[in-house]
Amino acid sequence: MPLIALALAAAAPLAPAAPLSPAEIVAKAPASDWRAIAASDLLVMTLAPDAQRRPRRVVIQLIAPPFSQGWVGNIRTLAAAHWWDGTSINRVQDNYVVQWGDPTEKKPLPPGLRTVAQAEYVAPVPPAIAARWRADDERARAAFVRAATPIDRDAVRAVLETMSKTDAYAAVTGHDQGWPYASDRASVWPVHCYGMVGVGRDLPPNTGSGAELYVVIGHAPRHLDRNIALVGRVVEGIEQLSSLPRGTQALGFYKTPAERTAIVSVRLASELPAAAQPRFEYLATDSASFAAYADARANRRDAFFIRAAGGADVCNVPVPVRPVP
Amino acid sequence: MPLIALALAAAAPLAPAAPLSPAEIVAKAPASDWRAIAASDLLVMTLAPDAQRRPRRVVIQLIAPPFSQGWVGNIRTLAAAHWWDGTSINRVQDNYVVQWGDPTEKKPLPPGLRTVAQAEYVAPVPPAIAARWRADDERARAAFVRAATPIDRDAVRAVLETMSKTDAYAAVTGHDQGWPYASDRASVWPVHCYGMVGVGRDLPPNTGSGAELYVVIGHAPRHLDRNIALVGRVVEGIEQLSSLPRGTQALGFYKTPAERTAIVSVRLASELPAAAQPRFEYLATDSASFAAYADARANRRDAFFIRAAGGADVCNVPVPVRPVP
Repeated sequence: MPLIALALAAAAPLAPAAPLSPAEIVAKAPASDWRAIAASDLLVMTLAPDAQRRPRRVVIQLIAPPFSQGWVGNIRTLAAAHWWDGTSINRVQDNYVVQWGDPTEKKPLPPGLRTVAQAEYVAPVPPAIAARWRADDERARAAFVRAATPIDRDAVRAVLETMSKTDAYAAVTGHDQGWPYASDRASVWPVHCYGMVGVGRDLPPNTGSGAELYVVIGHAPRHLDRNIALVGRVVEGIEQLSSLPRGTQALGFYKTPAERTAIVSVRLASELPAAAQPRFEYLATDSASFAAYADARANRRDAFFIRAAGGADVCNVPVPVRPVP
Repeated sequence: MPLIALALAAAAPLAPAAPLSPAEIVAKAPASDWRAIAASDLLVMTLAPDAQRRPRRVVIQLIAPPFSQGWVGNIRTLAAAHWWDGTSINRVQDNYVVQWGDPTEKKPLPPGLRTVAQAEYVAPVPPAIAARWRADDERARAAFVRAATPIDRDAVRAVLETMSKTDAYAAVTGHDQGWPYASDRASVWPVHCYGMVGVGRDLPPNTGSGAELYVVIGHAPRHLDRNIALVGRVVEGIEQLSSLPRGTQALGFYKTPAERTAIVSVRLASELPAAAQPRFEYLATDSASFAAYADARANRRDAFFIRAAGGADVCNVPVPVRPVP
C-alpha cells in the first residue's frame, strides 16, 4: 500500500457503518429490487366515510399463482359485477378477523363462479423452491455428516427434516414471489399472517365462493392454514379495518345493522380511470435487499436492541409493499 | 358378554363423542382447574368515556415471579401514588402496540422507584420447569438412541436441542403458572404475545421505570423478547385499546393532543372498595384441562376444520382468563 494512502486512512479512518434497521434497509433498496404490482391484481374497496366525513379506502393485492387461483378468479368475477357495492362489514373479532360481504346472505351471486375443491388449499411445490431446498439440504447434510458419522443416509435425512423445523406449523416456511408460504415439502400453501385476506366459508366440504371475505387483524391464526383459502393481502388502509369497533355478538358479529360499515364499491384497479388507479410495488423476495431485510428482522442490531433474536417467524418478516414513488 | 347387553348395544350404539373445540374444553373445565388472581395483582385503568358516553375500563394482570418483579414493584408504587391519573394514551401503531403515560415526559415520578438492570429481562429457570425438561430430554434421548446408534452422547444432545426447536426464537417455549415463556435452557423470559403489557424505555442501557407502558395489539413482536420488560397482560377491555384510531406520526404517535384518549385513573384492584374490585381467574397451566385445551389449539378437530395443524406457537395458546363465575 502506498504510504500516502496509509497516512490518509490513519488520518480519516472510515467510521464503522451503524447497523441499519429493517426499515432503513428497505428505504435504501435500489429501484431494481422492486416489482410493480399489476393494476389487474389490485382490488380497491371504498367504505362509507367515517364520522369525521373522511374518505376510507382499502387496497387489496390478489395472491399470485400457484396459490388459490380458483377463488381469485371468482373474486375478479364478483368485482366486475360490482357485487360488493352496497354490502357491508359485518364482523370484527378482536385479535382475529374483520369480515365483509352480504349480511342477508340472500343477494344473488353473479353467473360464472366456480366451486373450488378443498385440494386447492395447497399447491404443488414450484420448481424454484424445490431447487433451493435441494441445495439447502445438501449443505446441511454435508455439515451433519462431518459432525456425526457413521450414520445411515435415511436417518440423516429424517434428522435433517426435523432440524429444519423452526416453525410450529410446518417443516419449512419462506417467501416466494412476494408471498409468505409454508410447506410440508410435498405441497406448499400461503400463510395466515396479519393483513392476509381469506375466503369465508360454511362447514366443509364447502370452500366458499369468495363473496364473503375476511382479513387477519391479530396474531397469525396459523391453524386456519390449509383449512381455508387465502386470496390476497391488504396493502393500503388496513387501519380502516383493524380499528373498527369490535362486534359484541358471537364471533364478533355486530348486533345491529347500524353498527355495520357500508361498502360503497369494490373495483379491480384496472377497471378504474388510469388517473385513479393506485400503483404499488413490492420488494422482490429473491433480491439481496430482501435477504438483508429478513436478516435484520431476525437479528435486530439497531441501537434500540441489546440482543438479536437469532430468528423470526415467517409472519414477522412481512413483505415490504409501498406506493410506487 | 351377555347377549342382552350385546343386543342393547346394537340397538342403541353410543354416539361417538364429537371432538370439542378449545372453547368448549375451557367451558367444561372443573372449578378445581381454575386459579383466582389476587386483587393486588390487578390494575384497573379507567379511560374517559367514548363518543357515545359509554364507560371504558381496562384490567391488567401483573406478571408473577420469577419475571420482571423490579418493574412490577415500580408499577405498584406508581399506582399507589395515582401517578397515571390525568395522563393519556399517546401512541397507537397498527399491528404493533398501544402506549400510554405522560405525553409531556415532565411529570415528576413518585419517590421509591428502582432502576432495574437489563439482566432482569430474563430469569433463572424455575426448578419445576427444569425438572420437566430433564424428563422430556430423557424420553427423547432414549427414542433417538434406539433410532440411531452408535453415536456419542454429546452429538445426541446437540441434535436433541435442535430437534426440540419448533419456535423461531427460542429452544423451548411453554406456559408456567399461567404465563407464556421462552427459554434458551439457561434462562427463561416472558413472551410478547397479543395483549401482553410491557415497559416503554429509552435507548439502552435505560430499562424504563414502568411509568410508560404499552400493550401488544398485533402479531407477536417476539424480537422484543429479552430487550424490554414485560409486566403483565390485559385480561379485560383489550378492545378498548386495540380499536383506537391509529396515530399518523412516526411510530403511531398522535399528531395532536386532541387525538389522545384521557386516562381518568389507574388503581390496584386491592385499593378499590371490595364491591368494585374485579375478580378474575385463569386456567391452571399445569391442569389436565389446560393440556387438553393446548392440544386442541394445536390440533383442531371440531367440525369447521379439515386438517389439524399438528402444532401451535406459544402465542396461539393464550391462557384462558375469565371473570370469576
